Amino acid sequence: MATRIIIIGGVAGGMSAATRLRRLDETAEIIVFERGRYVSFANCGLPYHVGGVIEERSALLLQTPESLRSRFALDVRTEHDVTAIDRDARTVTARDTRTGETMTETYDHLILAMGGTPRQTTPVGDDAPPVVTLRSVEDVDRVTEVLASLPAMTTARAVVMGAGFIGLEATENLVRRGLAVTLVQRGTHALSPLDPEMASPVADELARHGVDLRIATTVEGLTPTGVTLSDGSDIDAQLVIDARGIDPASHLAASAGLRLGPSGGIAVDEHQRTDDPRIFAVGDAAEKTDAVSAEPTLVTMAGLANRHGRAAADVIAWETGHLDAPPAAASPALGTAIVGLFDLTIALVGWSEQRLAAAGRAHRVIHTHPTDHAGYFPGAERMAMKVMVDPGTGLILGAQIVGGHGVDKRIDVIATAMHARLPAVELAQLELAYAPQYASAKDPLNMVGYIADNLASGVADTIQWHELPRAMDAGATLIDVRSPQEYAAGGIAGSVNVPLDALRDGIDALPPGELIVHCQVGQRGHTAARILTQRGRRVRNLDGGYLTWKAGAHASERVGAPIPA
Amino acid sequence: MATRIIIIGGVAGGMSAATRLRRLDETAEIIVFERGRYVSFANCGLPYHVGGVIEERSALLLQTPESLRSRFALDVRTEHDVTAIDRDARTVTARDTRTGETMTETYDHLILAMGGTPRQTTPVGDDAPPVVTLRSVEDVDRVTEVLASLPAMTTARAVVMGAGFIGLEATENLVRRGLAVTLVQRGTHALSPLDPEMASPVADELARHGVDLRIATTVEGLTPTGVTLSDGSDIDAQLVIDARGIDPASHLAASAGLRLGPSGGIAVDEHQRTDDPRIFAVGDAAEKTDAVSAEPTLVTMAGLANRHGRAAADVIAWETGHLDAPPAAASPALGTAIVGLFDLTIALVGWSEQRLAAAGRAHRVIHTHPTDHAGYFPGAERMAMKVMVDPGTGLILGAQIVGGHGVDKRIDVIATAMHARLPAVELAQLELAYAPQYASAKDPLNMVGYIADNLASGVADTIQWHELPRAMDAGATLIDVRSPQEYAAGGIAGSVNVPLDALRDGIDALPPGELIVHCQVGQRGHTAARILTQRGRRVRNLDGGYLTWKAGAHASERVGAPIPA
Repeated sequence: MATRIIIIGGVAGGMSAATRLRRLDETAEIIVFERGRYVSFANCGLPYHVGGVIEERSALLLQTPESLRSRFALDVRTEHDVTAIDRDARTVTARDTRTGETMTETYDHLILAMGGTPRQTTPVGDDAPPVVTLRSVEDVDRVTEVLASLPAMTTARAVVMGAGFIGLEATENLVRRGLAVTLVQRGTHALSPLDPEMASPVADELARHGVDLRIATTVEGLTPTGVTLSDGSDIDAQLVIDARGIDPASHLAASAGLRLGPSGGIAVDEHQRTDDPRIFAVGDAAEKTDAVSAEPTLVTMAGLANRHGRAAADVIAWETGHLDAPPAAASPALGTAIVGLFDLTIALVGWSEQRLAAAGRAHRVIHTHPTDHAGYFPGAERMAMKVMVDPGTGLILGAQIVGGHGVDKRIDVIATAMHARLPAVELAQLELAYAPQYASAKDPLNMVGYIADNLASGVADTIQWHELPRAMDAGATLIDVRSPQEYAAGGIAGSVNVPLDALRDGIDALPPGELIVHCQVGQRGHTAARILTQRGRRVRNLDGGYLTWKAGAHASERVGAPIPA
Repeated sequence: MATRIIIIGGVAGGMSAATRLRRLDETAEIIVFERGRYVSFANCGLPYHVGGVIEERSALLLQTPESLRSRFALDVRTEHDVTAIDRDARTVTARDTRTGETMTETYDHLILAMGGTPRQTTPVGDDAPPVVTLRSVEDVDRVTEVLASLPAMTTARAVVMGAGFIGLEATENLVRRGLAVTLVQRGTHALSPLDPEMASPVADELARHGVDLRIATTVEGLTPTGVTLSDGSDIDAQLVIDARGIDPASHLAASAGLRLGPSGGIAVDEHQRTDDPRIFAVGDAAEKTDAVSAEPTLVTMAGLANRHGRAAADVIAWETGHLDAPPAAASPALGTAIVGLFDLTIALVGWSEQRLAAAGRAHRVIHTHPTDHAGYFPGAERMAMKVMVDPGTGLILGAQIVGGHGVDKRIDVIATAMHARLPAVELAQLELAYAPQYASAKDPLNMVGYIADNLASGVADTIQWHELPRAMDAGATLIDVRSPQEYAAGGIAGSVNVPLDALRDGIDALPPGELIVHCQVGQRGHTAARILTQRGRRVRNLDGGYLTWKAGAHASERVGAPIPA
């Protein structure tokens, strides 16, 4: 008898599982229940349809139940709400939300791919602006409808709750449609997984496009004309986007007695299997293993959902004799992510400095400001790069990059290096493709490797921007080794200017005690530190130079307090 | 007494060694001899100054002897030709080519970084167009002078000898200046390290920009008005660029009795040391170890030169007590390379299929045609990707990518994976950054990993474009599973059209014997093959689909013979 497989959820993870299963087993019965009206839609494209970047709504609909039936012989049931799982009977009960009809289907294997649900209750009010999430095609239709109803979009305002990935994309696309946007963020900076100095360019970019960013603020409630914020202010708004993140949709699994993990996601083993051997879970509803801590975690990324959907299919196919060997165990999750914000690209992987510090994990930090390609070739764009390194193992713990061209490339190489467990110093050995319009002969990542090597070998010692005030209070002398022109254009209070090329002759005039050197990005500072160290001075180089310090200072100004407090 | 270090060659490798040495040892005496007038210039930018892309000549000059003296206390002697090395006396004899003065300097450590010399004698003629290489600032000045002397550049023609990386860059930049260009290539396609079907878009791009590409042709000699080609034809030309590649400049080393390797480069150990413990060699003059074969090889890339220059400096600093530990052994060389050609980007790493076949190395081949980012987001550009895999170890042996956006990113990730010795199937596990304007949820490299997995597990079996004629001669039936519209727009002779969505119903009508399926790029073909395989048919999927086949067919047409012959 044919194997009977039920999949709950028909987007990324569920549909990857369904199509892979079919390719491995022509005889299986495969039923996919999807609560929404659409399956396999481009959820990461939703904000861009709001903004008109993706013009055709149909471009979001990658597959239909009909196309999936004809190509993959799948039984796809949209607008079906699964209400119960009976593990003893191995049945699933679903309700057709159009007709109210309920049905019970048996399974040999069950795959849970329900995704997430909004983290907090989205407020609604009869006499209040509409509040919409951006999770489904229906959501986008709703937003489109609201936008169409606005008399003049240039005078309309939207409030976006949450400055995470979706919140930033929503903001950009509403601005693109002509709306004024107030972006309300509970944390102290946009994109919480970033460290504050790395989030500083994000705040600048939002300001440059007229976005009203409110940090350390929440939406307290709706009013007839907009929202009330936690600081007591009222904001007029004709539309509110709720982008405050999601929790794993694990309610159904919990009701069926399946084990949830500490994160609230469905607990699975390295083959996506729950504690019921017949049931698998993938995607945003399922827990991952964190690559940095090896602890259970949640990572809500489409790529992982697809991969784990395929892996679950492979396990089932192996158990039913349609694959000769079981699939490899799932790799731990790095949490690689990227977002575009107007002309900025922001990418990250692994843990932030703040998260490492909070967890008490030892770490070294490296800030650089390389250009995406050779500076002598036109169009080179500067990026800010930050890499965290485990001083014990030398492994890369995380990275953050903010800039324009070439950001996506560097985060992918770092993610690959982390996956392969290459030590940070090995970045220096990578043989990356170089022609002047694409990179530099010493790629930014090679340079990070060299810096990691210098820190590990003791050739270099650095100080972080947020450690500078304490060191100066303790009597350290800060030497700005840039040119007098750069120094005059803006420096750090309390610094003295001794340009690098004059340093050898000026050493005897320097005061005793600890020296801290800095330049614009850290490179001349390194040479200066080497000169001074070899003359017997105790020296640290300000990591990332003036640019990182300034970004940190701006972050502190925005919060209104030194960071870390 | 201070350590005395002499470096011969002041560009990439030599200057990286000199500056690193200074940062590690303030007391060393460091002398750099450079034959040319300039040190540390941007040699990879030279063709782009010819084309006016890099407008200012000064942008090519990254450092001067004066700047290197003031910042790094280096004694840089340009226009000095080193004529002899006396290893017993530990001296170097050099001649100031401006004054004719000779000098002899002693060394404790010597670093050879002389680069390369043109592979073949560049022809000259009194009554003939100027023939120029593109290796130095002086070369570019010469080209600029010739171009300035042409009465009307729109009627002028240049001949470029050699369609390698420099030859292609020279061609593009001469076209940009308004010249007609004949590009003369000894081999059967442009960019010999590519396989012929991957070089097909290169030929198309050259044709699209009016370049007259002559394959399997050489320049036999100069005439008063141009050149004579090996096919007997005469080409009018006012300028000839010699870009036929370089040999390692190992003559001086050989004269000093240092061991050369089988490649003709200076033999070095994993710390760049020659067979004289006081002498190191780096850059294009020195041999590398090939990452695929573990044999000595030549790889003429600026990145490796820089890295090995730094490594040589580290060894010397360690031996003289300025570094606590020796540097890590040099990684084997992958030969990662990239070149822009008008709107095309061409990148490669490792070995080609042709090279593997010629060496008798077992290999699997994977062709794909992904877009650089999600197809539903505007502006997605298709690329052609090819990856060679060792069927025994599963390791990646090489890759070639031709396209637009995103080519550089993917080659860098593959190079990183090769460096880390990740098996090809691990590409599926890479957690690469995804937002729709940057990538796809299943990145092109994840897809290559899935295909590698299917080939390794036996879930898929493929046939290469050049194997198709023989299989069809042997009686295989070729089934085109694309839509009738696609089939009508152009298919492979002898194929029958059974669209994928009609395949399950049409199986019984298929003839007996081997089946070969194909679609546009290989993906629908894979699903078709799975359907047919599970019905007991012997099936192979045409790797890379119609697009790869067509590129191969065009390559064969250009050569005028089937490939492989």
